[in-house]
Amino acid sequence: MSMQRWKLTIEYKGTNYSGWQIQPNVPSVQETIQTALKKFCQKDIKLTVAGRTDAGVHAMGQVAHFDLDYTNADGTERCLKEFELPKAINAYLLNQGISIIKAERVAPDFHARFDALNKLYRYRLINRAAPLAVEKGLAWQHRLGLDVEAMREGAKHLLGKHDFTTFRDSECQAKSPVKTLDRLDINIRDYDGQGGKEVIFEVEGKSFLHHQVRNMVGTLAEVGKGKWQPTDIKTALEAKDRTKGGPTAPSDGLYFVRVDYP
Amino acid sequence: MSMQRWKLTIEYKGTNYSGWQIQPNVPSVQETIQTALKKFCQKDIKLTVAGRTDAGVHAMGQVAHFDLDYTNADGTERCLKEFELPKAINAYLLNQGISIIKAERVAPDFHARFDALNKLYRYRLINRAAPLAVEKGLAWQHRLGLDVEAMREGAKHLLGKHDFTTFRDSECQAKSPVKTLDRLDINIRDYDGQGGKEVIFEVEGKSFLHHQVRNMVGTLAEVGKGKWQPTDIKTALEAKDRTKGGPTAPSDGLYFVRVDYP
Repeated sequence: MSMQRWKLTIEYKGTNYSGWQIQPNVPSVQETIQTALKKFCQKDIKLTVAGRTDAGVHAMGQVAHFDLDYTNADGTERCLKEFELPKAINAYLLNQGISIIKAERVAPDFHARFDALNKLYRYRLINRAAPLAVEKGLAWQHRLGLDVEAMREGAKHLLGKHDFTTFRDSECQAKSPVKTLDRLDINIRDYDGQGGKEVIFEVEGKSFLHHQVRNMVGTLAEVGKGKWQPTDIKTALEAKDRTKGGPTAPSDGLYFVRVDYP
Repeated sequence: MSMQRWKLTIEYKGTNYSGWQIQPNVPSVQETIQTALKKFCQKDIKLTVAGRTDAGVHAMGQVAHFDLDYTNADGTERCLKEFELPKAINAYLLNQGISIIKAERVAPDFHARFDALNKLYRYRLINRAAPLAVEKGLAWQHRLGLDVEAMREGAKHLLGKHDFTTFRDSECQAKSPVKTLDRLDINIRDYDGQGGKEVIFEVEGKSFLHHQVRNMVGTLAEVGKGKWQPTDIKTALEAKDRTKGGPTAPSDGLYFVRVDYP
């Protein structure tokens, strides 16, 4: 037997999925890819993911690993080139909103989650009165204009190592609420040429609590609206109490962009 | 009777439509909006558009005008505020991939098509091997890398006033094939953080022939691939013969972005 460990980089549109993880009776990204893998190699394969995503959350660069026993009829290892695997799997993923961007043969001890050094999330918020047509489901449409400078002021209080209980979902299973936020940048640009603006949050850190990015964005939006002052972010964080935080931003705007490894 | 002329700025995702124009037995953007307008004001209203778009082509800022006889029971004019109209129409357009971005009360002789001074189209091409997942239908995915500098060289030959017969669809109904191309810029940027690139064509002029933008992009892509030299664009243009041009780029990547008026 010749076991090969593969790392996949995966893009998906989360809109029609209940999230990454396999659950009974609902479509999941994990199950859809595992089904495609089975069609490709006639074996049951389990994917181990870098970071689960919730229903509706998208990924440009999710990472997962799996082991493949890929042998010829005589038991010798079958050689599979890195560029061949995405083509082979994608052929079974047509029109399912999932695409394998890259496949890499990795060492047998590579682990998509444990080895991750850094994760980048992006959150897209469109500031305009009209509902989204072209990008429905791909961003949070927010009627009211937001004060980006105030949101940046507020975001500064979240940087560094903190107990993020205020921004943690009640169902979060992480052992500790202490995380280190390395970057939270907020940029604004023209969206539609008609006065609409796109506000882009980029968030980096080694790991995050459940709903942490969406809770931070939803709370910063309160600062942007002027309902909160920037320093209220500090007060909320120090309260270590979810009820002192702002609302959870919708899943539509969240993208899991990249995972960095050593 | 009190007739009001209104100008609408419209965003739509073209994927599920046979194009702008009403046709029997197929869904069109025009018919969908006219149906919404009828629900809103109980009147049959005909939209006059700035520029028709084909099946699958998107718009960020299509423009159309219509006349509304909007009176009170006593025959006096009913006042309708500009911000109210998009909300009222959009309420009947939910989940149909169409959104009214803006409504403006205009002079009775305003004409969406005849008054247009300038139109901006954008064409999005994603250079990467893997199929698009998040933005399927929203850009042209092209496996092979393109030489952007060579495409820019080729594009220079198209600028200015020319007979664009080489880039004109055989079904084009324009009286003259002579048009003036004011701008054709090509920019490249990172797409997915995984090595994929986005090539963005921006094209401006007063008016265009049927399929002109898609034929120019499809032909420039041949230059990008190295199958054509940049000067071959000049030769093809001067041939005034559609068969001497390159292929038509798919509709997925084309966006009607903006129309300028005096």
